[in-house]
Amino acid sequence: MSLVLVGTMAFDAIETPFGKADKVVGGAVVYAGLAASFLYDNVKLISVVGDDFGDNINIIKNRNIAIEGIEVITGGKSFFWSGKYHNDMNSRDTLATDLNVLADFDPKVPPSYQDCEYLLLGNLTPNVQMTVLNRLHKQPKLVVLDTMNYWMDVALDDLKEVLKRVDILTINDSEARQLSGEYSLVKAANKILDMGPRYLIIKKGEHGSLLFGEGQIFSAPALPLADVFDPTGAGDTFAGGFIGYLAKVKSINFSNMKNAIIYGAALASFCVEAFGTDRLQSLNDEEISDRIKEFVSLSKFDISE
Amino acid sequence: MSLVLVGTMAFDAIETPFGKADKVVGGAVVYAGLAASFLYDNVKLISVVGDDFGDNINIIKNRNIAIEGIEVITGGKSFFWSGKYHNDMNSRDTLATDLNVLADFDPKVPPSYQDCEYLLLGNLTPNVQMTVLNRLHKQPKLVVLDTMNYWMDVALDDLKEVLKRVDILTINDSEARQLSGEYSLVKAANKILDMGPRYLIIKKGEHGSLLFGEGQIFSAPALPLADVFDPTGAGDTFAGGFIGYLAKVKSINFSNMKNAIIYGAALASFCVEAFGTDRLQSLNDEEISDRIKEFVSLSKFDISE
Repeated sequence: MSLVLVGTMAFDAIETPFGKADKVVGGAVVYAGLAASFLYDNVKLISVVGDDFGDNINIIKNRNIAIEGIEVITGGKSFFWSGKYHNDMNSRDTLATDLNVLADFDPKVPPSYQDCEYLLLGNLTPNVQMTVLNRLHKQPKLVVLDTMNYWMDVALDDLKEVLKRVDILTINDSEARQLSGEYSLVKAANKILDMGPRYLIIKKGEHGSLLFGEGQIFSAPALPLADVFDPTGAGDTFAGGFIGYLAKVKSINFSNMKNAIIYGAALASFCVEAFGTDRLQSLNDEEISDRIKEFVSLSKFDISE
Repeated sequence: MSLVLVGTMAFDAIETPFGKADKVVGGAVVYAGLAASFLYDNVKLISVVGDDFGDNINIIKNRNIAIEGIEVITGGKSFFWSGKYHNDMNSRDTLATDLNVLADFDPKVPPSYQDCEYLLLGNLTPNVQMTVLNRLHKQPKLVVLDTMNYWMDVALDDLKEVLKRVDILTINDSEARQLSGEYSLVKAANKILDMGPRYLIIKKGEHGSLLFGEGQIFSAPALPLADVFDPTGAGDTFAGGFIGYLAKVKSINFSNMKNAIIYGAALASFCVEAFGTDRLQSLNDEEISDRIKEFVSLSKFDISE
């Protein structure tokens, strides 16, 4: 049984108040894959790159992640994104989005991926997300979908169709408000849970995240950091850590989902410590374990009346 | 030994998307006093009103709160504030601020208040806050100070003098950034703790709050609410609940401060359920106890590796 992650692979050019990187490896599924690989040992990726991606694929292979589902387009150029973060690091300007080979992405599901039990549909056009679901012979045990405001603007009907087939949706607070038409996140969650997903995770960046489902709410903190070096990929790292933990513990219930969110948040807190995927590449299990303890200490209180 | 709260008493005119109230009792020390009275039984107020306040004083007297330190100015008009909340309930326009008797507030500390062990210096001009400290013959065991960006703009030096004499400062995230000149809240906290307070509470509204001190950080959630009817006084209610809990448990350490924050947040979550102080007036101990359980369930997770 395996964990399959679908999403973009890219070259990113990133400028933050701390520095500038002209061409680093990025893309949602790279961040998510690296994160998941620390928690689960059978991770498989579906994506598309140009042959300019070259040896960079080793970033993934080094973590024992399957790459059979990554199509390499000969003579094609990999997806390119360029962004500049403002001083507050919470807002950014997108300077360039060159889809390149991503424009015609037709996701391949190799026979060896048909054992998929856990599936992360990263932020992509809803049609591509639906195609992956349709090409799996068996509905996975758990499907997590990530999306963004852009698809709500240009492909809302398609998005709503995919939502009927997923278990967990992850979006940020403004996207939850847009999708539901409700300002209150409690009301927004109720409406979105009526659209199909059994659980909703609302990501609030430096303010943590909220999990809704089974009639319960869980509020997870983010780790307050002295320096956020580069926020790129933090949300994808969160998603990868989240589903990686669930694949590891196998049983899906509210209690495990809470822990999965803490693991996702812990991994995301590493991601922002360096440019691109650098920190995730140098990470080890002991560091993760120590970071989890920091999260426990950060949010634990003990009221006995 | 007693808990003394200093701050404004007022009439408020409030407009929210849910309705309008032309003249309700408000003011920081009314909210804080009501909140504290649910946790501690020897609460005393210092404030000033005009004789137009009249029988409204019973809102406080009914909760067995001492009013000897509330000066009534014959022929004077009570402080009046008027505000209109936007649809998101997180931002508001102040329509009127008529200081009236507050303009010449000379805080009285009656002899019966000299047993003050816990002191909340509510948001007021730093000079008035300092005057109260100077008129207490003995430095209290714990001094909590609330302030706002306005005093950082117009009375920063005075504010910094008071900060040297307090144990805990409560401000919101943008105020912490203004006071410290740091965007990162971790760096902001370190700088502010160097200014005098041993602990710092950064209030983030619907995103909860952060406690810094003893080299530790605690992240407290806010209760996600379907409806926020009127946010006026939520921060003051939080502060009153916070210091009320500490007065009750007596021992001041990081662990008790965490619980105090949860109590403050729980009481604040009631405050916003109705206009003005209405919900705090109708509140009972059982409801508070149930709400605390909701906070436990909201933020508790159990990771065993």
